[in-house]
Amino acid sequence: MLGNFIYSNPTKLYFGVDALENLKDELSKYGEKVLLVYGGGSIKKNGIYDKVISVLKSAKKTVIEDAGVMPNPTVEKLYEGAKLARENNVDLILAVGGGSVCDYAKAVSVSAHIEEDPWDKYFIRFEEPKCKIIPVGAVLTMVGTGSEMNGGSVITNYKEKLKIGHVFGEEVFPKFAVLNPEFTYSVPMYQMISGIYDIMSHILEQYFSGTDDNTSDYIAEGLLRSLIHSSKIAVKEPQNYEARSNIMWIATWALNTLIAKGKSADWEVHMIGQAVAAHTDATHGMTLAAVSLPYYKHILPYGLAKFKRYAINVWNVNPQNKTDFEVATEGLLKMKEWMKEIGLVMNIKDLGVKEDMLEDIAKSTFIMGGGYKVLNHDEIIKILKESL
Amino acid sequence: MLGNFIYSNPTKLYFGVDALENLKDELSKYGEKVLLVYGGGSIKKNGIYDKVISVLKSAKKTVIEDAGVMPNPTVEKLYEGAKLARENNVDLILAVGGGSVCDYAKAVSVSAHIEEDPWDKYFIRFEEPKCKIIPVGAVLTMVGTGSEMNGGSVITNYKEKLKIGHVFGEEVFPKFAVLNPEFTYSVPMYQMISGIYDIMSHILEQYFSGTDDNTSDYIAEGLLRSLIHSSKIAVKEPQNYEARSNIMWIATWALNTLIAKGKSADWEVHMIGQAVAAHTDATHGMTLAAVSLPYYKHILPYGLAKFKRYAINVWNVNPQNKTDFEVATEGLLKMKEWMKEIGLVMNIKDLGVKEDMLEDIAKSTFIMGGGYKVLNHDEIIKILKESL
Repeated sequence: MLGNFIYSNPTKLYFGVDALENLKDELSKYGEKVLLVYGGGSIKKNGIYDKVISVLKSAKKTVIEDAGVMPNPTVEKLYEGAKLARENNVDLILAVGGGSVCDYAKAVSVSAHIEEDPWDKYFIRFEEPKCKIIPVGAVLTMVGTGSEMNGGSVITNYKEKLKIGHVFGEEVFPKFAVLNPEFTYSVPMYQMISGIYDIMSHILEQYFSGTDDNTSDYIAEGLLRSLIHSSKIAVKEPQNYEARSNIMWIATWALNTLIAKGKSADWEVHMIGQAVAAHTDATHGMTLAAVSLPYYKHILPYGLAKFKRYAINVWNVNPQNKTDFEVATEGLLKMKEWMKEIGLVMNIKDLGVKEDMLEDIAKSTFIMGGGYKVLNHDEIIKILKESL
Repeated sequence: MLGNFIYSNPTKLYFGVDALENLKDELSKYGEKVLLVYGGGSIKKNGIYDKVISVLKSAKKTVIEDAGVMPNPTVEKLYEGAKLARENNVDLILAVGGGSVCDYAKAVSVSAHIEEDPWDKYFIRFEEPKCKIIPVGAVLTMVGTGSEMNGGSVITNYKEKLKIGHVFGEEVFPKFAVLNPEFTYSVPMYQMISGIYDIMSHILEQYFSGTDDNTSDYIAEGLLRSLIHSSKIAVKEPQNYEARSNIMWIATWALNTLIAKGKSADWEVHMIGQAVAAHTDATHGMTLAAVSLPYYKHILPYGLAKFKRYAINVWNVNPQNKTDFEVATEGLLKMKEWMKEIGLVMNIKDLGVKEDMLEDIAKSTFIMGGGYKVLNHDEIIKILKESL
């Protein structure tokens, strides 16, 4: 475990088919006014909206609705939500949805009570909130981002063609989250698969960095093995509770700070993927899937030992009579087979990217520098071309 | 993930060589009077006592000392500590030591402000505390129990020949813990190895139970692999920071509720080991080591699939051309080799047990019933005989 670090994760998780039964008790800890945040209305079709409203009513809450949060929440929507929360002086923001809705709720929670422009403050200058932060709770209906147990919030500014995440501290983490795997059953297959790859990518971004011996990487390998196993079942049987519940739990632990502790992390796949999304509005997990293999093939020689370990420990590659490079490459091949098996989008052309957009996408790709190779502009172009 | 569960772990962990620098800030959250709890005085020899006292002074705290907590904290000591905490009306209990000291501090925290006998209330009747609970903080100097981030507390009643643990809820978890791996360097080799096996046993007690597919077991496998790897280094180079820091981190995550979520657990090795300790005062981890293999050999046929998985995923046993039983047994053989390599006590005779004590030890062994086989009296006797 490298360096000094603090682990503190105050989010309380209620997991299981009866998890929503705990919502009323949680609501009793907060004031009367609740900003109910949700997306495009799928929760009205699948009945989750009615269930949540019924609990809110029985808890005698005044509900202010903030619907229409988009898959990539925009800065304009954030301005609106912050105004709504401020003007109504809400006591709690209840996010009912997936990661986009949770991310948006957290952004609103730190934006309602500031004078400045939240985009400039949090997503350009990366300042920390000093204002009153509205508590956030979550009822999760889609799995992938881990947003239910972390301080992350990603907002998109289409005018600037920027999709930027701010990782806030524990005071912005949701106070509680309701995780009922059955609430994710009605998510369309494309979104479920995209979420699965988002989880995969979260783990890999933290795994493919550093050369030290670190318990976090062993935990990451356990999560990866479980995810690969359960995802194969989930795509065949979307209502397999065991598989869906494992995937839901892995998503939370993939990005709640645990497997980043005591080590460096990369996040370059997310930077490239987010640049693609800012130019296409493509689904987050699919943008990550479409650029991952070209990126990993490119950096493999710089992190050979770790890619070899990945092949053996995660993909059961037999290393006998093979060079390290062969073992490592076989690991990526097995990963590719799995990606195809579960039905991921394997190139950015299918997400709407054309060759003449690559230069702009590369320009809006942030360089994180924590992985095995710090990319230059030409390398990003090369990776994007191979992702086409 | 089986059933409904709640995950909530409020302990804040400060990890690394500079972790103690956070103590002063933490102390500022509590009142003036601090009960300083520690063991036999090793912290005075290795300088940790002076470091902690210096922080307490600079934070202007009134320190009430409660020294002499024994490796198996007794019910008599608990009565004393509860009286001391009550009479001084302390605002915080600061445990400086290993798991015994943390366990004891937690027991005092829920015993100071009750009228009843805490042994009867918590360790016989297993009641939950309704009283004022004194907050506990910890500076860890020995690794193994995970007591720094859970609600567990084990107290021994030698008069009754009973060593019993109560797992309290999150309100009894330490509020914070300082984890500096260097603080564990001066722990004698015997104690370090004993702690390593305590960690191993915690993970295995939660792993060897259930037949479902569960992410918790994958995380457990990651922790086991990291522990086996780092323990081999630590016994050869006790001042290897990387190995010792990994072991410290694994210990915390082995027993902070995470890998028990969504599954059943066993804990029978602890029940037999604790019965041995109650009759011998032997070191906790060594009692577990000495009875583990006879126990696991005995239950192996009842949990064959899991023991096979353990052999392959944790011990890299090649399953080709072998029966499941052969694979599973080879896993236990590899475990035995590792146990010998790191220098564990392999039989209870070396811990002071004589054949004529077995009947009494078996009688004071609790039956938990969550593992692959519910033991009867004769089976416990058989396992103890094979452990001799």
